[in-house]
Amino acid sequence: MSSYVSTASIRVRYAETDQMGVAYHANYLAWFEVGRTEWLRGQGWTYKEMESHGSRLPVIEAHCEYKQSARYDDEVEIRTTGTLLSLVRVKFEYELVRTADAGVVATGYTAHAVTDRGGKPHKLPERVRVLFQ
Amino acid sequence: MSSYVSTASIRVRYAETDQMGVAYHANYLAWFEVGRTEWLRGQGWTYKEMESHGSRLPVIEAHCEYKQSARYDDEVEIRTTGTLLSLVRVKFEYELVRTADAGVVATGYTAHAVTDRGGKPHKLPERVRVLFQ
Amino acid sequence: MSSYVSTASIRVRYAETDQMGVAYHANYLAWFEVGRTEWLRGQGWTYKEMESHGSRLPVIEAHCEYKQSARYDDEVEIRTTGTLLSLVRVKFEYELVRTADAGVVATGYTAHAVTDRGGKPHKLPERVRVLFQ
Amino acid sequence: MSSYVSTASIRVRYAETDQMGVAYHANYLAWFEVGRTEWLRGQGWTYKEMESHGSRLPVIEAHCEYKQSARYDDEVEIRTTGTLLSLVRVKFEYELVRTADAGVVATGYTAHAVTDRGGKPHKLPERVRVLFQ
Repeated sequence: MSSYVSTASIRVRYAETDQMGVAYHANYLAWFEVGRTEWLRGQGWTYKEMESHGSRLPVIEAHCEYKQSARYDDEVEIRTTGTLLSLVRVKFEYELVRTADAGVVATGYTAHAVTDRGGKPHKLPERVRVLFQ
Repeated sequence: MSSYVSTASIRVRYAETDQMGVAYHANYLAWFEVGRTEWLRGQGWTYKEMESHGSRLPVIEAHCEYKQSARYDDEVEIRTTGTLLSLVRVKFEYELVRTADAGVVATGYTAHAVTDRGGKPHKLPERVRVLFQ
Repeated sequence: MSSYVSTASIRVRYAETDQMGVAYHANYLAWFEVGRTEWLRGQGWTYKEMESHGSRLPVIEAHCEYKQSARYDDEVEIRTTGTLLSLVRVKFEYELVRTADAGVVATGYTAHAVTDRGGKPHKLPERVRVLFQ
Repeated sequence: MSSYVSTASIRVRYAETDQMGVAYHANYLAWFEVGRTEWLRGQGWTYKEMESHGSRLPVIEAHCEYKQSARYDDEVEIRTTGTLLSLVRVKFEYELVRTADAGVVATGYTAHAVTDRGGKPHKLPERVRVLFQ
């Protein structure tokens, strides 16, 4: 596992709330995506470039534990770490923290296959692989 | 304008509500998309096939007037009509009606360019064009 | 665990796809929500009524394993079962199956607290509790 | 119309793309919401406070013209202006501009009723009204 921890932040949109008055739980997975995008960018690489070079990281498993509700207009910090599971599998772990009071909103992870444009398994490019070490 | 009016229906998901306790307004545009998808299917064609044959209908204008709130678990009927504006422009009009009481929830329209895979303007294929007449 | 298995179905919306050409993974959690809504309805109860009586089922944990991609316009069947974990915890398990070829798209579960309107822990009402047995 | 123009920015999420490879058009309405939220905040007020004081601004009309596609990872600037239409109606206008090349991605507007918690028409509080002048 890389020791690099990225931090990104989002502000909860009205669009993301539900009638319980809190952020709808599926949105947390989209915030995780913001987290891993910034993890790559923070290390000098972007997922966009990676795609343009023919590699993709489809999600094969997602998990989230909801601790405290994120609410409309809350600023939430996304702390992300990355781990190489194998040459064709990576994992990102996330901690979502409310900026105002440092309350942990949620923790979770996503596991990803590495594939080519056509969805076939594919070794993670060396340039990206080193970021996980 | 074709005289064909398609009807499709959706049930409002909790995911689609917001903290005002009603369906968030941006979702109506996704419901419009369900409407035009079923308009095509109802006439023996699908947008999926159309894409696989190389034509696309990107939205160039969208408009919605919100009349009454759609709420969680409401069944909403989407009535759709289609008009050919030119060889490279089509328009769909929508009426959203709550099934339970026939209340009009919203009306709106979307205008679309016709393009090829690369986004270049492109004549609407004859097979699709006739559906609008 | 109740032996009742509900089936609901959704059709993948264009809105739900991403640029990988498949349904974006976070949407599966919204489909799970459709599954548990129909599980309750199929047993003569609705989540809407339950909320209006003052009980809520916020998600405290969500998990999904993605097996095969769901694609635009695919019809996906959602098979749902429910389990009572305690007087204040329930769990739903889901299997998403592509209707066309019976391919398993994903499996997953969500765990829920039972709370009152204010978010305080609360016993599951008897009328709902019996559905899980 | 107030001469105040707020600027906010968003980065297009993978979650917001569709299989055409661009941001799905309904998301622009959620970005408009980010724009008006920041318009209020930039003038020393927040929509969150406004709601907590009992006023709401439900959308009664939304319009968007799509000029150029916003794509994954693009940074988009949202320029927002506000107009008082009457004591119970306000309008926001938006221009979405790609940061990288200043290309106009879209323009649009939303019109809003002013209501109380129960959805009844309601005069815009003086403290908010002055922001529009």
